[in-house]
Amino acid sequence: MALREVQPLQRNESGIAAMIATLGQRFGDRLTTGMALREQHGHTLTYIPNQPPDAVFFAHSTEEVQEAVRVCAAQHVPVIPFGTGTSLEGGVNAPAGGLCIDLGRMDAIVKVNAEDLDAVVQPGVTREALNVHLRDAGLFFPIDPGANASLGGMAATRASGTNAVRYGTMRENVISVTAVMPDGSAIRTGGRARKSSAGYDLTRLLVGSEGTLGIITELTVRLYGIPEAMASAVCSFPDVEAACNATIMAMQAGIPVARIELMDRSCVEAVNAYSRTGFSASPLLLLEFHGSASGVREQSEFFGEIAAETGGSGFEWVADPEDRARMWKARHDVYFAMQAAAPGKRTIANDACVPISRLADCVAETERDIAEAGLYGPVLGHVGDGNFHVALFVDSDDADELARAEGVLERLSRRAMAMDGTCTGEHGIGQGKRAMLRHEHGNGTDFMAAIKHAFDPRNIMNPGKVIPD
Amino acid sequence: MALREVQPLQRNESGIAAMIATLGQRFGDRLTTGMALREQHGHTLTYIPNQPPDAVFFAHSTEEVQEAVRVCAAQHVPVIPFGTGTSLEGGVNAPAGGLCIDLGRMDAIVKVNAEDLDAVVQPGVTREALNVHLRDAGLFFPIDPGANASLGGMAATRASGTNAVRYGTMRENVISVTAVMPDGSAIRTGGRARKSSAGYDLTRLLVGSEGTLGIITELTVRLYGIPEAMASAVCSFPDVEAACNATIMAMQAGIPVARIELMDRSCVEAVNAYSRTGFSASPLLLLEFHGSASGVREQSEFFGEIAAETGGSGFEWVADPEDRARMWKARHDVYFAMQAAAPGKRTIANDACVPISRLADCVAETERDIAEAGLYGPVLGHVGDGNFHVALFVDSDDADELARAEGVLERLSRRAMAMDGTCTGEHGIGQGKRAMLRHEHGNGTDFMAAIKHAFDPRNIMNPGKVIPD
Repeated sequence: MALREVQPLQRNESGIAAMIATLGQRFGDRLTTGMALREQHGHTLTYIPNQPPDAVFFAHSTEEVQEAVRVCAAQHVPVIPFGTGTSLEGGVNAPAGGLCIDLGRMDAIVKVNAEDLDAVVQPGVTREALNVHLRDAGLFFPIDPGANASLGGMAATRASGTNAVRYGTMRENVISVTAVMPDGSAIRTGGRARKSSAGYDLTRLLVGSEGTLGIITELTVRLYGIPEAMASAVCSFPDVEAACNATIMAMQAGIPVARIELMDRSCVEAVNAYSRTGFSASPLLLLEFHGSASGVREQSEFFGEIAAETGGSGFEWVADPEDRARMWKARHDVYFAMQAAAPGKRTIANDACVPISRLADCVAETERDIAEAGLYGPVLGHVGDGNFHVALFVDSDDADELARAEGVLERLSRRAMAMDGTCTGEHGIGQGKRAMLRHEHGNGTDFMAAIKHAFDPRNIMNPGKVIPD
Repeated sequence: MALREVQPLQRNESGIAAMIATLGQRFGDRLTTGMALREQHGHTLTYIPNQPPDAVFFAHSTEEVQEAVRVCAAQHVPVIPFGTGTSLEGGVNAPAGGLCIDLGRMDAIVKVNAEDLDAVVQPGVTREALNVHLRDAGLFFPIDPGANASLGGMAATRASGTNAVRYGTMRENVISVTAVMPDGSAIRTGGRARKSSAGYDLTRLLVGSEGTLGIITELTVRLYGIPEAMASAVCSFPDVEAACNATIMAMQAGIPVARIELMDRSCVEAVNAYSRTGFSASPLLLLEFHGSASGVREQSEFFGEIAAETGGSGFEWVADPEDRARMWKARHDVYFAMQAAAPGKRTIANDACVPISRLADCVAETERDIAEAGLYGPVLGHVGDGNFHVALFVDSDDADELARAEGVLERLSRRAMAMDGTCTGEHGIGQGKRAMLRHEHGNGTDFMAAIKHAFDPRNIMNPGKVIPD
């Protein structure tokens, strides 16, 4: 059995052929059926096997997406939206074939409303492109999932990342979206007001729906003023529990940390070897503070006191921009570092999220489980949110190792849920965790399925994802 | 025509009689059919006529709510959840009669998880009761809609209030809920993890659904550490535009204001007369800062500089707790102040929310419209969110005045929507704004109706609210 095996769904061959004929005639070479491009569009950054779509369409506008969806709806053919292909749970696979709609060319920054601290963007705009555009205006968009993902994809998967502890996730930072629905109609879920009590929250329903309810073709996102000052700090701890205790105290004291990242010992060792850093070989917290010049100094010093109380050592305040950049570069390169420590192996990225009071237990039990399974799997986490990643490294040809990895990941999901947490804090359900949804949400899953069925009775929108059969 | 006339829906007399017989036998005197109590449970804090339910049931547990909903589902009888009855748009009226489920006795604070900064509460806990309970732990729950509302009702209506600019609304501060659904099943929409990407966001779907999709019987809310220091400030401005400009600059500069409240001239005059304050008779901002002692001083001083640049005068920093309390008491008493300025009249409270760049225009046009209609209607707002209130004072017996008020309010909703805002920032749709929902959401309304129908095909959950016929 291959790890994370996914069943092919029933293909509608005649409908697919008719869709390709119709859209090919309409859009010419913007509809592609070449295998290389199709495979690239089924690619995900994890270990789930590739299931390419039958055709890829490069859309230029909401109206074109509507047109394509209407053809697929008439032919009962699947539609899979595609941003940058950086999802981790098989989000862009096409288990029943169908049409992939690539939104990458819809990459216009439609409007920046500096006074309102918002921007209207097309879904193909990447977070880096948006931030380059905003820099001169003194603004930024904070959500940083690591990859240079598209904002449409980040909204669809409810992405977050290192600074969610301060700025929230896509859930909090998408003000409204325009989406093409399974019947080909387009809706706009709200205006640009910061809050609204007018009706059901369709914005938050589409955010995180992973393309199964509609395709986001425009979004309004929150922006923030670039802080006057930023400072960083590092601190080593004797164990993960001490690092978690320091984090809990900092959160309770209301220190507005912008990032607070945990690396376990195994992760620190990989980073030291790869990035030539000299961190002590024990759990490490990396922190960032945003505010006024005196504010960030005060925050860092306060955290330093907390760290000293909870057993931290080697606390170091890093205000110099180059030193800060070097430190966060080491954090950003952590996957390369881990990969270098496990040559010839492939990584299976996974995440879970628990209440912060349970984080130390959850990480410790997971570390033990990984060791007992004889696997290499460093842990790093967005510890302020109780969210952490396990990167398991496996030999694709070793069926036994794959099976042990599968066991570790399933136990991790169940452990997090048993601690009143979730089987995924930011990666999403996709194909990989569909079996977990009912464990986590019980009969709430029936109400999710009822929404899916009400919106998409023929199940053409990204079928085989999120909602279990 | 009475203002905000609401049509009675079709009553199911035999079903109602059977429901009362069944539940009366089961719950004895916890099911009441006395008119005084029924009318009290149809009461709302606005001008919508009372439509009492046929019976009121005082529930003690989720299981009892399930039992009552199952009886109503079997008899096709409406169910209306009730918290404290402070909704402003007819949320607890019973246009087709039916059963009101009063959740006020479900007022247990189930668990405070200080390390995780969350609390699990029953829906009848009021925000004041929660904050009294939390005080000794150094924690607080920030959302303050003015009334001492129940947390279940606040979640159901997506409430917010004065400090949403810093802490968000119920949308951001409800982590998960337990809800009894229209078929009598109970779901829990999530655990206590700070974030999750596992499936559709049922939490945010139920928050703001105003009891039309399910009844919230338990909720987990976010808590915050009581800040080390709080300071307040007041500043007068020559006009609303100058006050808005100061607010915009403060937000762009990233000053983490906890409250920034606008009163227009008419509102300030009423407050001066009632609370014996000596504010200059021009638009006023009241601010609050939360943080460290040096942080709040720095924030206030920074805001003082911005105010000076934008034409503010009489800027005054208020750090003394008694002075602060006096200032915010005047703000909290503003409805009494306005009422005193319009003896014998009744208030129609209304709200709208626009992007902050449009706020000055929206308020100025609304003030002109009120004056042209010959009405008394002070404006006050949560200006950091672009959200503002218009309190129109009318003589219930003056049909012409009522009609003019109706016109002002409808134009206000349309004006806000035309400015890419919303017809309600925090009061909800209820009965009063059902006609506006389609204007605001267009065919998005069809998808809201589809969810309603999928969850509640017989339309027993708070019928006649939110979703237009």
